[in-house]
Amino acid sequence: MAMAAQASIGNSEFDRDTAVVPRGSGVYDTHLSPGWTILHAVNGGYLLGTVGRALGDALPHPDPFTLSGHFVSACTPGPAVIRTQTVRTGRTLSTGQASLYQIDEDGREVERIRVLATYGELDALTDEVRTSATPPAVPPYERCVGPADAPGLDLARTWAILGRLNIRLDPDTVGWALGAPSGKGEVRGWFTLADGRDADPLSLLMTVDCFPPTSFDLGLKGWTPTVELTAHIRCRPAPGPLRVAIATRNLAGGFLEEDAEIWDSRDRLVAQSRQLAKVPR
Amino acid sequence: MAMAAQASIGNSEFDRDTAVVPRGSGVYDTHLSPGWTILHAVNGGYLLGTVGRALGDALPHPDPFTLSGHFVSACTPGPAVIRTQTVRTGRTLSTGQASLYQIDEDGREVERIRVLATYGELDALTDEVRTSATPPAVPPYERCVGPADAPGLDLARTWAILGRLNIRLDPDTVGWALGAPSGKGEVRGWFTLADGRDADPLSLLMTVDCFPPTSFDLGLKGWTPTVELTAHIRCRPAPGPLRVAIATRNLAGGFLEEDAEIWDSRDRLVAQSRQLAKVPR
Repeated sequence: MAMAAQASIGNSEFDRDTAVVPRGSGVYDTHLSPGWTILHAVNGGYLLGTVGRALGDALPHPDPFTLSGHFVSACTPGPAVIRTQTVRTGRTLSTGQASLYQIDEDGREVERIRVLATYGELDALTDEVRTSATPPAVPPYERCVGPADAPGLDLARTWAILGRLNIRLDPDTVGWALGAPSGKGEVRGWFTLADGRDADPLSLLMTVDCFPPTSFDLGLKGWTPTVELTAHIRCRPAPGPLRVAIATRNLAGGFLEEDAEIWDSRDRLVAQSRQLAKVPR
Repeated sequence: MAMAAQASIGNSEFDRDTAVVPRGSGVYDTHLSPGWTILHAVNGGYLLGTVGRALGDALPHPDPFTLSGHFVSACTPGPAVIRTQTVRTGRTLSTGQASLYQIDEDGREVERIRVLATYGELDALTDEVRTSATPPAVPPYERCVGPADAPGLDLARTWAILGRLNIRLDPDTVGWALGAPSGKGEVRGWFTLADGRDADPLSLLMTVDCFPPTSFDLGLKGWTPTVELTAHIRCRPAPGPLRVAIATRNLAGGFLEEDAEIWDSRDRLVAQSRQLAKVPR
């Protein structure tokens, strides 16, 4: 993973690959990059970041406070159209909806994901924190491990997205990579974008869904496709690396929930998410 | 709170008050009952149960697996129209959208809530549970306390909804009723519907949002209006009382998340929800 010259918010891989071009009337063109795939699947968090960018342009408020995406069919890299609708505009919050479509092999427009979201302005919020939640216990960065430490795993060959991400995991949560999953359903570690771009609310929408899934730590192989993911962005993240913790409490009846929390370098809880995913048979 | 003759699923207050009448083309009429209000506000969970019933009729699958509602304006008791749209129909899951509208004082149709949901069939899921989450530590029913144990509070006079609910709270989480909130942001207890109707997936959509809010236990007064609530229904609840635990970890910048989990009499985690709510100034 070559570290490019330091990228910045607005001038980075993530910004270029989530760019949307307005056609007018709340419709946007975009091009889903093959750089954010896992095997052949376009990462769901990358899709949420792209749709979230379109909604931030269409709505009068810039930042996703709460965004729910229901994944209705599998995306492929290539062109896509996002159609947004403004549901309600208020003084401090606005609600909008968006759908992302692609053209399938038969030339028909097919919906890939539908999103409902409420936007506000993070910079207008006070800094007051009234609760005592604490960041996850992630060991120091140097003691955490990345894909280069597990050459046998060779995820980087089939997970193009790993070229965009700098993930270093708590060694206690990577037993699955050595054939010894903990069974707890927990994965945590450090995160930055590989090109050095700092986090912003849109990149957080991607980050909540870019870690190896908890299903690996539960001893499951194969993919757990997301049915729905809801993310709350609670604070503009400070510059510097993020700590990410994901956990599953209930794998039952072929489905599991996966909760993510993201903390920034100032020890602020900047994002919380929960997804419902389908367990592979 | 008079205990009526034992009600049943399909023949109860909740069923009558969430009834929807199809007009055709996915449009439903309903009448929001004043029996599910808190002060003048119609309970959000009751709204989700009502909209959830319309979607269960409109979609080919009966049960809400994951349902996200964004609350766009305040409902009042009285007539309402629900317009549904089928987003995608699959073999095991279908996705739909619904909006509930009311006529305002100026005779205009105003949207109150918009919902995006994915439905499936709970009875088609296996009974397999692979994780080790445990029910919340709620003391025995007899040791928990209800509104009748706190006559000074007199919530029942202004909370019409309390006539529909049989809630008994863990004494450790009711300090707020005596002016001594714990500050932890936790409320837990037992729950049944007052008329004895057992729980079903639709009543769970109401139950995730019917407990006294965690903001009370954080020492806040006044209302915390829901911006968005997402609920996952994970299993059809067994007959008998439910245990409900709600918790807030992060009250910051004027917003808080509130997580709810509901366990049934067989110790199954039947519902999980998270909402983003606005803290009163």
